[in-house]
Amino acid sequence: MKAVILAAGLGTRLGGVPKPLIRVAGREIILRTMRLLSPYVSEFIIVASLYAEKINEFLKDKGFRYEIVKHDKPEKGNGYSLLMAKDLVDGRFILVMGDHVYSEEFVERAVRGEGVIADRNPQFVDVDEATKIKVEDGRVADIGKNLEVFDCVDTGFFVLDPTIFDVAEKLIDRQEIPLSEVVKEARLPVTFVDGKLWMDVDTREDVRKANKALVKAAIKSSGDGFISRHFNRKISTTLSAMLVNRVNPAQMTVVSFLAGILSSLLIFLSIPIAGVVYQISSILDGCDGEIARASLSTSKKGGYIDSILDRFVDFLFLSVLALLYPETLKIALFAVFGSVMVSYSTEKYKAEFGESIYGKIRIMEYLPGKRDERIFLVMVFCFLAWLSSIWIYWMFWVIAVLSIFRVIATLAVVALKS
Amino acid sequence: MKAVILAAGLGTRLGGVPKPLIRVAGREIILRTMRLLSPYVSEFIIVASLYAEKINEFLKDKGFRYEIVKHDKPEKGNGYSLLMAKDLVDGRFILVMGDHVYSEEFVERAVRGEGVIADRNPQFVDVDEATKIKVEDGRVADIGKNLEVFDCVDTGFFVLDPTIFDVAEKLIDRQEIPLSEVVKEARLPVTFVDGKLWMDVDTREDVRKANKALVKAAIKSSGDGFISRHFNRKISTTLSAMLVNRVNPAQMTVVSFLAGILSSLLIFLSIPIAGVVYQISSILDGCDGEIARASLSTSKKGGYIDSILDRFVDFLFLSVLALLYPETLKIALFAVFGSVMVSYSTEKYKAEFGESIYGKIRIMEYLPGKRDERIFLVMVFCFLAWLSSIWIYWMFWVIAVLSIFRVIATLAVVALKS
Repeated sequence: MKAVILAAGLGTRLGGVPKPLIRVAGREIILRTMRLLSPYVSEFIIVASLYAEKINEFLKDKGFRYEIVKHDKPEKGNGYSLLMAKDLVDGRFILVMGDHVYSEEFVERAVRGEGVIADRNPQFVDVDEATKIKVEDGRVADIGKNLEVFDCVDTGFFVLDPTIFDVAEKLIDRQEIPLSEVVKEARLPVTFVDGKLWMDVDTREDVRKANKALVKAAIKSSGDGFISRHFNRKISTTLSAMLVNRVNPAQMTVVSFLAGILSSLLIFLSIPIAGVVYQISSILDGCDGEIARASLSTSKKGGYIDSILDRFVDFLFLSVLALLYPETLKIALFAVFGSVMVSYSTEKYKAEFGESIYGKIRIMEYLPGKRDERIFLVMVFCFLAWLSSIWIYWMFWVIAVLSIFRVIATLAVVALKS
Repeated sequence: MKAVILAAGLGTRLGGVPKPLIRVAGREIILRTMRLLSPYVSEFIIVASLYAEKINEFLKDKGFRYEIVKHDKPEKGNGYSLLMAKDLVDGRFILVMGDHVYSEEFVERAVRGEGVIADRNPQFVDVDEATKIKVEDGRVADIGKNLEVFDCVDTGFFVLDPTIFDVAEKLIDRQEIPLSEVVKEARLPVTFVDGKLWMDVDTREDVRKANKALVKAAIKSSGDGFISRHFNRKISTTLSAMLVNRVNPAQMTVVSFLAGILSSLLIFLSIPIAGVVYQISSILDGCDGEIARASLSTSKKGGYIDSILDRFVDFLFLSVLALLYPETLKIALFAVFGSVMVSYSTEKYKAEFGESIYGKIRIMEYLPGKRDERIFLVMVFCFLAWLSSIWIYWMFWVIAVLSIFRVIATLAVVALKS
């Protein structure tokens, strides 16, 4: 299947940068769309006008099979742009707007649809501004920005066959051929993909909104503990949304690692402050993954390095405390072992079974003792240590019991599962 | 592709049990063959005589698609048995002897061959007893047990097409139709699969030999350290070969776990003896995997449980020592962390990249600090502890440095690999 991307707009509201090349969540809009479509698409046809060279310059070393069709009548509208792709398309094809941002989840469903992909429950667009559709018998009855009565909103994503060109050609003599006119004329079937993340990006404010939405959609929820879900992620996603266009995941890994090291060093200065910085490093630890996933630049190597460094940070914090308070050393031994074993028992599962334990064994989500929870507890005990250092001792007890209990429970659950 | 298994022999030398049902390395011969062939074969045709019911009884709940052809003239030879399968076979098919044991490695190559699969370098059969082949222009020129001049030996594995039945039919009037006569008459092409494990099983001695050979072939060499390769495996494979028909892998996991727990308890009695038992548990730890792989009964769950228990055994031994000699606690903290991290860094790689680090990064095989090496070192230091308990302290130093160095080296190697 081929995909036609309409990128002939002038994008005046974003200051001279062609909209398909605007970076949203760390990734140029057109590149994101092409990446997400590439599992389904063999070749891209990009229809451009004024910015055709710029777009070509940008795409030429990105490894896609594509062709750029240039025309010089952007004022004739999207329907005219579509018509320009006519000779390069045969059979079923995808049509998508070059200034719309889609999530992976949206694309996965949309490509399986037919006709206009429409949203009955748009979460991220201003319905007033959107193109509305009235549906009858599963087909477009009416379409337009100013419809009073409508069922859903046009997502800018279509799955079409070449008969659409015949319809468009009939309108060729008009001064402007809006795509919506072609859609209406063709009485296209409507496929609903409701409530998933997609947006058109017109303004700086839209970019910010899309950054935030894409970062939020990028949370790999499985494996998050209670503290992460209800506290850490709220802060880390806000931070990631601010940084996603400026910072790469590897830089974030380094920052959160350094914050972790710093927290251990601060133990010599003030244990409560050290605890707070440790908790901050735990929040920052979410950002690298969020930025990587939101910008479609996850890397296995990045995931590997991040997780090994996390183990070192945890060990360093616990062992510095234990070395400073040698009366806690015996129980610290168990806490250190238990902490690594929580990760080991999770990762060994994935290594052996080839899939995440969280996807496979639901109860694992609710077993306490995950890293975010342990670090939060450590911070709480670090505050208590202000009162008496006996709390360090109890901290090690809690971490040891919690983590070793979790590992034994994991082992039992895996062993008992058929 | 279908597979024809000739199982009409009477197996008199093995005391009334039909040879295909003899257990070799924990798995009945015919079941092993069918398991190994099942990735390539859609249906099995089993030609049997006297023992047809017994074989059917055995196979009926094993989940294979098969048909049993019964005939009552076993004395007419293998060529006659082959002929009995004629109406059930169409197109290319595999022909294999029901009393031959093959390794996975052999089968993988053999199924890609054509005609007779022959071995120019048989490692596990007595060439005097074997059926020899003289090859000319890639085809069988002569075949027989008593050939003076020959190039290779018949493995009892063939990839044929239905024209073989026409050749066999020409010999129908003979009193006996040996398969070798049919092969010679057909001037079958010869494919060499040299030096891989296959055997025909005629005597109790053959069973013992096959047990040993299959256990040895089942060593998962990657991940073995120096001590394992040169010492532990020699003992564990001998033991596994003795036990493989009697003990299942789960039982071996329990035994080696209990030996590990015992070693920790023995620390209170005698540290050198504890060290020796710890080393014995390390050797026994190889047996469950060997038995599982040799008997084709590996399980992910088994692998998971075994590895978690290993971590507990290591922790228990080190922590009991550290608790008994509290002056070593500080450095013991590092040794305990490092020991688990060696496993973590290896398994996390597999979890993230989906393949073993040993297959991907050659240098990992040679980096010291694997479990077998650490345990051997611990044993050596346990002997030295007889002289002075200061050696316990140095043991923790060595384990800590060795393992943490290994983890950092692993991290560096993964990070630097493109």
